[in-house]
Amino acid sequence: MKVAIVGLGLMGGSFALALKKSSLKAEILGYDNSVKNSTEALKLGFVDKIVDFEDIKRADLIILAVPVDAIITYLQKLKDIKDSQTIIDLGSAKSLIIKNTPQSIRKNLIAAHPMAGTEKSGPNAAIEDLYEDKVVVLCDFNDSGEIQQEVALKVFEALKMKIVYMDSDEHDKHAAYISHLPHAISFALANSVLSQEDPKSILALAGGGFKDVSRIAKSSPIMWSDIFKQNRENLLKSLDDFEYELKSVKRLIEDEKWEELQEWISRANRLHEIL
Amino acid sequence: MKVAIVGLGLMGGSFALALKKSSLKAEILGYDNSVKNSTEALKLGFVDKIVDFEDIKRADLIILAVPVDAIITYLQKLKDIKDSQTIIDLGSAKSLIIKNTPQSIRKNLIAAHPMAGTEKSGPNAAIEDLYEDKVVVLCDFNDSGEIQQEVALKVFEALKMKIVYMDSDEHDKHAAYISHLPHAISFALANSVLSQEDPKSILALAGGGFKDVSRIAKSSPIMWSDIFKQNRENLLKSLDDFEYELKSVKRLIEDEKWEELQEWISRANRLHEIL
Repeated sequence: MKVAIVGLGLMGGSFALALKKSSLKAEILGYDNSVKNSTEALKLGFVDKIVDFEDIKRADLIILAVPVDAIITYLQKLKDIKDSQTIIDLGSAKSLIIKNTPQSIRKNLIAAHPMAGTEKSGPNAAIEDLYEDKVVVLCDFNDSGEIQQEVALKVFEALKMKIVYMDSDEHDKHAAYISHLPHAISFALANSVLSQEDPKSILALAGGGFKDVSRIAKSSPIMWSDIFKQNRENLLKSLDDFEYELKSVKRLIEDEKWEELQEWISRANRLHEIL
Repeated sequence: MKVAIVGLGLMGGSFALALKKSSLKAEILGYDNSVKNSTEALKLGFVDKIVDFEDIKRADLIILAVPVDAIITYLQKLKDIKDSQTIIDLGSAKSLIIKNTPQSIRKNLIAAHPMAGTEKSGPNAAIEDLYEDKVVVLCDFNDSGEIQQEVALKVFEALKMKIVYMDSDEHDKHAAYISHLPHAISFALANSVLSQEDPKSILALAGGGFKDVSRIAKSSPIMWSDIFKQNRENLLKSLDDFEYELKSVKRLIEDEKWEELQEWISRANRLHEIL
């Protein structure tokens, strides 16, 4: 199987590494509009060769591992591929991508969101076990062709991922709370500390709690502004809900209602009965 | 050296374990107002015996590892100890504790804040390397007696901690941003998700980002409501700053200012040049 990976950063690079480690016998072609990324990917050895986009278009399986706006652009460029070919996009927001997929290749597309990542980016950030044991959400799966469904299941099983099926609108609502909101929060925490008079003295005290909450504040600006753009309404709704909780705790502290504050914290503790 | 540990949960238990592992030859007496905690601590073997509070008062070194309000209560009960004895309190907010320390034992007190912890609590949560390589902030150190300063340095060095000296008011300002605000944020995120219609479906998608930001939402309600109470003003100020950043990102998303959003995220990325 010829697999073409478009975007050779953290997600695409890790996908390539995982494929190489898996039982699938795949020849891996790479494409990235950054020459630096292409060179690094070749050097790191996770692609067999770097090719032109015309060669990408002829692969059996095309993985789109680029920011979500770029996924929509590439789908336009792929609108004349054959019925037998498969495209898997790894974007974090799904509804707009599906809506903007040319009708001629709707069946070719598998809309996937692997719930995996790190705060790092670029080819050097790629790790072979990024996807292992993680959830991958497949959206509007029945709208994909039979061949494509088979290919996708074979690939995600080879990557040892846990497959969850979901409607794309439902996915985007959930993804706002579970992924996009936490990123917005982490960026906001980082900026609140950095805007203080002496951030270095403050950060010298950082323990595990701060490090965990701020870890994803290192995430890529292009990737995340694109996601916030594509999932704008759901994210705004989740930000409203979060703001409501923040105002609640602020009011409890202002009004010195310590017992109610304990109850509010106890409610939060319940998260871990589920997670 | 006889070391008495008041409060046999995560912090006190880990302190006991670390002392036992260290080169210091210490007999460790334990005290906890919960019989369950006392029994568990004995069973886990990190205290040599459980004693009455009268015996605690005769130890060379008394560690107060209880919620910050309880620290103030215990300091009152210790106001007639000898000049040669040392008290180290491990509270996360320092100004009020120092202000409420009886004058007769001000020199006995070392006001310490170890920047270490986990989201767990109770004796079973204790781990022997909790403090290793972590920062401990010693506040208003020059107001402690010479004997006490020596004891404190010996103990924290034996625990392999990195010592930072700080004015207690300065500490409380910094601690608001680096520790108390992240906890408030993590609790608020947990509550926003739990208040949704179907939190289980949402949480089924949780990846590393959500797990990290929400990890400390499991932290103890009593411990944290006390800390929020004692560091009320600094925390409210930090919540204001955080709210300002949150409103900024919300406005950028509402107004679809994607380039400015990228800049805002890039600013947050700078955190990791320092941390």
